[in-house]
Amino acid sequence: MNITDRSKVRRLPARGSHELEVIHAILDEGFLAHIGFQVDGQPFVIPTNYGRDGERLFLHGSAASRMMRELEKGVPVCVTVTHIDGLVLARSAFHHSMNYRSVVAFGTARKVANENKDHALRVISDHLIRGRWNDVRGPNEQELKATTVLEFTIEEASAKVRTGGPVDDEEDHSLNVWAGVLPLAITPGTPLPDAQIHPEATLPNYIGDYRPKTRTRRSAE
Amino acid sequence: MNITDRSKVRRLPARGSHELEVIHAILDEGFLAHIGFQVDGQPFVIPTNYGRDGERLFLHGSAASRMMRELEKGVPVCVTVTHIDGLVLARSAFHHSMNYRSVVAFGTARKVANENKDHALRVISDHLIRGRWNDVRGPNEQELKATTVLEFTIEEASAKVRTGGPVDDEEDHSLNVWAGVLPLAITPGTPLPDAQIHPEATLPNYIGDYRPKTRTRRSAE
Repeated sequence: MNITDRSKVRRLPARGSHELEVIHAILDEGFLAHIGFQVDGQPFVIPTNYGRDGERLFLHGSAASRMMRELEKGVPVCVTVTHIDGLVLARSAFHHSMNYRSVVAFGTARKVANENKDHALRVISDHLIRGRWNDVRGPNEQELKATTVLEFTIEEASAKVRTGGPVDDEEDHSLNVWAGVLPLAITPGTPLPDAQIHPEATLPNYIGDYRPKTRTRRSAE
Repeated sequence: MNITDRSKVRRLPARGSHELEVIHAILDEGFLAHIGFQVDGQPFVIPTNYGRDGERLFLHGSAASRMMRELEKGVPVCVTVTHIDGLVLARSAFHHSMNYRSVVAFGTARKVANENKDHALRVISDHLIRGRWNDVRGPNEQELKATTVLEFTIEEASAKVRTGGPVDDEEDHSLNVWAGVLPLAITPGTPLPDAQIHPEATLPNYIGDYRPKTRTRRSAE
């Protein structure tokens, strides 16, 4: 993967990484990306879900969406995925921070041809909740036509990761104030069945045991 | 607030809102924004935390950061805040969705003068974890100098909200497949004290009882 000025980690480079393994792990754990593009100098940042297939991210949306119509032109795109792991509570206001893992990826997107849409949508579905695709009705021709699927090729990317406790000034250690980390994580609640659920439908394990952290780990299959 | 082409909700307008109350509630519940700006046509999307003060969002960062140096020029900026509330699991692949609340805000930023930095940093701190500011050592002159604080004025914004269960095609209701919503939320874990914590330091309630949903509700004060 290239490293040019746009992806070089300049601030706190010790937190930065261009290692594929780190970048892929962060992308695989997430399911929400913030997509950046610009139209006549005006930037837009739109949240959307995605799936990873090697160095490609698949995105999908309505064929009528502004984002899809802009991105399919092949304009420069920035895709950012962020996980918040905790609040870092220091003894001074200045040293407060967040534990996080983020990837900022640069590249361009292009339309996925009709014959490859099914594969791409399966990758997105597996990425969101592995196992679901096999259980549900697949897309029909009309649904595929209404859906634009894009393949975003990662040309460059950088990861930033902060872990651990607060890093306070030595003289602040004498302050009688609680300091440490408040961990934060996305956790699932109790699944809520649809009002019209089929009387024989049972809750699959991939929903009941869903955890964002392990969702996409292929080794667990 | 203005509504022009950039903030008009075009896709699924029933999910869209330009109401200030809706927009403010979403901004107040979040603490992570994705900031979009462009440099020579290349978009960047950078995660950062923020605080709201009326129609202004305060952002802060190192005076050396690329984002701060670009934003303080007064270039067009897009600030997006997204909450994921659940996975919407339909009977067909096509009707899968997410429950979410997001705000996309457009405007420009400018530097906060030195004499107003303290107020702005307090707003950001209160937004992240209310009550913390009063407990910790405030910023000294050197720390204030090293910190750029920006005031982003929201010129236009739109909210998008999806709630509720899957909306399946009528003929898919006969499928024997579990359908419904898997709720997701950011939840705190057990606070982890710093290794060098002061022996008399006790855990404040604003950390022990921290919940992102209620964190910034001023009525709870």
